[in-house]
Amino acid sequence: FFFGPYKIDPREVFLVSKHSFALVNLKPVVPGKALLSFFFPFSKRVVPRFTDLSSEEVCDLWLTARNVGEKVEKHFKASSLTLAIQDGPQAGQTVPHVHIHVLPRKAGDFEKNDEIYDAIDDKAKAMNDHLNLDKERRDRTMDEMEAEAKDLRALFD
Amino acid sequence: FFFGPYKIDPREVFLVSKHSFALVNLKPVVPGKALLSFFFPFSKRVVPRFTDLSSEEVCDLWLTARNVGEKVEKHFKASSLTLAIQDGPQAGQTVPHVHIHVLPRKAGDFEKNDEIYDAIDDKAKAMNDHLNLDKERRDRTMDEMEAEAKDLRALFD
Repeated sequence: FFFGPYKIDPREVFLVSKHSFALVNLKPVVPGKALLSFFFPFSKRVVPRFTDLSSEEVCDLWLTARNVGEKVEKHFKASSLTLAIQDGPQAGQTVPHVHIHVLPRKAGDFEKNDEIYDAIDDKAKAMNDHLNLDKERRDRTMDEMEAEAKDLRALFD
Repeated sequence: FFFGPYKIDPREVFLVSKHSFALVNLKPVVPGKALLSFFFPFSKRVVPRFTDLSSEEVCDLWLTARNVGEKVEKHFKASSLTLAIQDGPQAGQTVPHVHIHVLPRKAGDFEKNDEIYDAIDDKAKAMNDHLNLDKERRDRTMDEMEAEAKDLRALFD
């Protein structure tokens, strides 16, 4: 699996469908008291824009996102979800590869609701840095991510 | 068509598919120099959560959003799209009815990128007020919205 030009370590992947795969999060966000994690359904095919996906890929990607959202909301004892695509550079996309941000939400998780969008932008940058092998940054270890991905895989069995 | 408990005026609807319809925006956002409009693909069936949709409805809704996004991005001379669902009250959903926010984006449209989320929240409130017949607020006239919806319908012929 690839994220744009970057190779994804399969230990970070917790769900695979016909045209999509889902990645764990590099590092949880800590906006207030709550600990929040993003989850990222990607299209397997590396294309920049949502309109580049075929109808079958659109369906598969969003059915994957629905599946991921339902499971992680319950698993993290949340009560809502933010689902978003930054479709193109002017929408905050940093790597030209279609993916969805799935964030389980809880009451009062962000002090100001618009901070969630900062969080989405920070996530995009963190993923980019993480996968860019020229940089040596690591926020969570691969072992930690592998352990989480393993827990999550069990939700979809 | 309904938005939660509120009846939608068909003059505001610019696209209808098997399980979805798309609404024009009550009022454009003016973040900087750019004038931005949201567009709202809805599921025809009034259900609160994304997981309440059948697989067929998920596909139809997102194919509608892809179609709307492609056309309005070009029409408004934008270069990216923000696509988002506030799925549940803790994610900012004000009326319990699944719908997508589609916003054509341009370079420098928001001074700070997170203002886009304020804009999404404001839109949710404005739609709610607009459709709540107990309130008499009208930001744009029905004639204005009808004219825009007519222009947009022509994009999908």
